[in-house]
Amino acid sequence: MKFSISHRDGAARRGKLVLPHGEVDTPQFMPVGTAGSVKAIAPDDLHEMGAQIILGNTYHLLLRPGADLVAEMGGLNNFMAWTRPILTDSGGFQVFSLSEKRKITEEGAVFRSHLDGREHELTPERAVQIQLQLGPDILMAFDECPPSQSPRHYHQTSLQRTTRWAARCKEEWQRRGGAGALFGIVQGGLHTDLRERHAQEIAALDFPGNALGGFSVGEEPEKMWEGVEHAAPLLPADKPRYLMGVGTPEDLLRCALAGIDLFDCVLPTRVARNGLLFTRRGRLQIKAARYARDPRPADGECSCYTCKTFSRAYLRHLFAAQELLAFRLNSLHNLTFYLDLMRGLREAIERGESRAWADSMLAGFAHGPD
Amino acid sequence: MKFSISHRDGAARRGKLVLPHGEVDTPQFMPVGTAGSVKAIAPDDLHEMGAQIILGNTYHLLLRPGADLVAEMGGLNNFMAWTRPILTDSGGFQVFSLSEKRKITEEGAVFRSHLDGREHELTPERAVQIQLQLGPDILMAFDECPPSQSPRHYHQTSLQRTTRWAARCKEEWQRRGGAGALFGIVQGGLHTDLRERHAQEIAALDFPGNALGGFSVGEEPEKMWEGVEHAAPLLPADKPRYLMGVGTPEDLLRCALAGIDLFDCVLPTRVARNGLLFTRRGRLQIKAARYARDPRPADGECSCYTCKTFSRAYLRHLFAAQELLAFRLNSLHNLTFYLDLMRGLREAIERGESRAWADSMLAGFAHGPD
Repeated sequence: MKFSISHRDGAARRGKLVLPHGEVDTPQFMPVGTAGSVKAIAPDDLHEMGAQIILGNTYHLLLRPGADLVAEMGGLNNFMAWTRPILTDSGGFQVFSLSEKRKITEEGAVFRSHLDGREHELTPERAVQIQLQLGPDILMAFDECPPSQSPRHYHQTSLQRTTRWAARCKEEWQRRGGAGALFGIVQGGLHTDLRERHAQEIAALDFPGNALGGFSVGEEPEKMWEGVEHAAPLLPADKPRYLMGVGTPEDLLRCALAGIDLFDCVLPTRVARNGLLFTRRGRLQIKAARYARDPRPADGECSCYTCKTFSRAYLRHLFAAQELLAFRLNSLHNLTFYLDLMRGLREAIERGESRAWADSMLAGFAHGPD
Repeated sequence: MKFSISHRDGAARRGKLVLPHGEVDTPQFMPVGTAGSVKAIAPDDLHEMGAQIILGNTYHLLLRPGADLVAEMGGLNNFMAWTRPILTDSGGFQVFSLSEKRKITEEGAVFRSHLDGREHELTPERAVQIQLQLGPDILMAFDECPPSQSPRHYHQTSLQRTTRWAARCKEEWQRRGGAGALFGIVQGGLHTDLRERHAQEIAALDFPGNALGGFSVGEEPEKMWEGVEHAAPLLPADKPRYLMGVGTPEDLLRCALAGIDLFDCVLPTRVARNGLLFTRRGRLQIKAARYARDPRPADGECSCYTCKTFSRAYLRHLFAAQELLAFRLNSLHNLTFYLDLMRGLREAIERGESRAWADSMLAGFAHGPD
C-alpha cells in the first residue's frame, strides 16, 4: 500500500491510496457490504456510482458462508464479483454488539452466533487469519470496543488488552506474509487522556494505517465531532486515518475537515430501506403524503439512476407498496449522495476552500427539502 | 396497432405487433409489473434483457396509487419510466381472485380492496376508463373468470354476461376515442363446446386482438395444453392471440406451437424470489447444499448479468442470507431465460423447425441441472 497526500487545507487532507485492487481517492466513503453484498446493490451499481472501495464484515462472513468457503471461491473479491479494493473489519465490533453469550479473556473472545447459536472463537491471530482468507486490500486489527457508557476503569483495562491484541495481530500478519495493509485501531471513548495514550501505543506499533474506533456509539453528534477533532491529529500524519462506522453526511464533512481520510457506515443503505433519502436540501422522508404527486426527482442535482429516472411520486408509491425496487433505488441514491459528497469535498480541499464548501453544504442540509 | 405474420410453422406463428410505444416480436413473453414495477427489476434491467412489452395490473394500480394519480403523472409509461409498450389487464381476474366480499351483477362487480377493505366498483365501462387513464398500448375487456371447478351451468351464465360486458367495453372504448388496442377475452374453462361458442361471440365483436382467459387456474398442465390447442385456432387467425397468465417454460413452448402470440405470467419472478432458477437443464433450487461451493453460473448458456457475473455458490449464499440482491439477481435471470426462450422459438419458427427445437428444449428441461 502507498499513501500520498497532495493537498492540505486546514486539518483536511486530499490523498490517494494505492492498493492491490486499485486506487482510492481520499477523503473517501466505503459502502458496507456486510455479508458479501452491499444490501440491495450489485457490483455494477457500485462501479457506476464511482465507489472505489467497499467494506466486508468478517463477523458476518465467518458465520455465513464461512471464511473457508470464501477462500475456496477465490477470496471475497472473486466471490462477490467486486474487482476494486475491499477493507475487512476484524469482527471485534460485531462480537461485542451482535453476538450472544460472549466471553472475553486475554486470549480472545468466545461467542455464540446470533444466527444459529453455534459457538465461535475469535482471537487476534484468528481474526487476522480469517481476514487473510477473505483477501482484502486492507485488514483491521482485532480490538474491543466497549459500550460508550462503560466506566472509565473498564475503558482502561480494555485499552491495555486492545494494545496487546494489536501487537499480536501485527505479529500474526507478518508471520503469514503480510498481504494487504493491516490497520491499527485506537479506542478510548470520549476520554481524551485515554485516547492520547492509546494513540501513542498504537502508533508505536507502526501499522500501515490507523483507525479510530468507538465513536458514534450513542453519544451526541457534537460530542463525537469534538472527540474526533481531538483524536484525528493524534494518529500519524503520513498514514491514512479511518474513522470506523461513521456516519451522517454532517459527520462525514465535519470529521473529514478534522483530518479523517476514510469512512464507512451502514446508515445510507439502512435508512434508504426505511424510506429516508439524503438530499442537498436535507432529509426527505419519501413516504410523506406531500410527495404523492410530486413529479420532481428526490434531489435535482443528483446524478444517480434514481434521480435521473424517477419522480418522488413514483418512489413514494414503490415504498408505500413495499416494492423490492424501492430498496434498491433508495439505496442507489443515498450511496451516490455520500460518494458525491466526498468527491465535492475532495475538490474543495484541492481549491483550499473545504471549510466554506462544507459550511454551504451543511446549510443546505439544514434547510429541509423543498 | 398493426399485426403482421411473417412465418408460419405448423400452428405456430412468427409475427410483429406495431404499437404506439414500439414494436413487439411474437411469440413474446410479457414480464408482469403488477403495481407499476416488475418486482425487484428496474426499467433499465428490462431494456437490457430485451423486454419489448410489459404488463400492468389495473386492479393493483386502481387500489394503489390510484388511476387518477397515474394519469396526473403522465400515464403508466411515464410514471414508472418505461418507454416501451404496456398491456394492462382489466382487473377482472384479480377482482375474482384477490378481492374481498365481491358481488357480481349484470352492471359489474362491487368488491373490497384486499389492502384496506375499501369498497370499489368495476364495471365494463369503468374498467375501460381506468385503463385509458393508465394509457397502455393494449387494454383488455372486463371479463369474469370463473374458478375452474365451477359447474358447467355457472360457466354458461358467466360466458353470456362476459360477452355482454365485452360489447359494453368496446362501446365505451370507441366512445372515448379508441386509444390503444382493446382485446376481447374468450372464457369457457375446459368445456370445448363453451369455448367454441364464446370464441364465435367474441370474434363477432371484431376486437383488434383476442385473448384466452381461464387457463392455468388449477388444472393439470396436459389438460391445459390440450385446451389451448383446441382453443387457439378458434381465435381469428389474422389477429394477435394472447394466452393470459400462462405459465411455465414448458407451457410457453407448447402453447406457442399451438398458435399463441403473447404470454404473461408472474411465475418467473415469483419463483425467483423463492430461489428457483429456470435453466436450459431444468429447474435449479439455489438453496440446495450441492451448490454451496459450485463456481459455475446458474445456466452456462445464459447471457444475463447474473449468469455472466456470479457463481451458484454466491447466489446460494445471497439467498440463504436473504440478501435483497438475491431477489433481483434471480429475477433478472428467470426473466432473461423466458425472453431468450421466446427469441429462440421465434428463430426456430423462421427456420421452420419450431417443433424439433421445442422438443430439444423440453428434453433439456426434463434432464435436470448438472
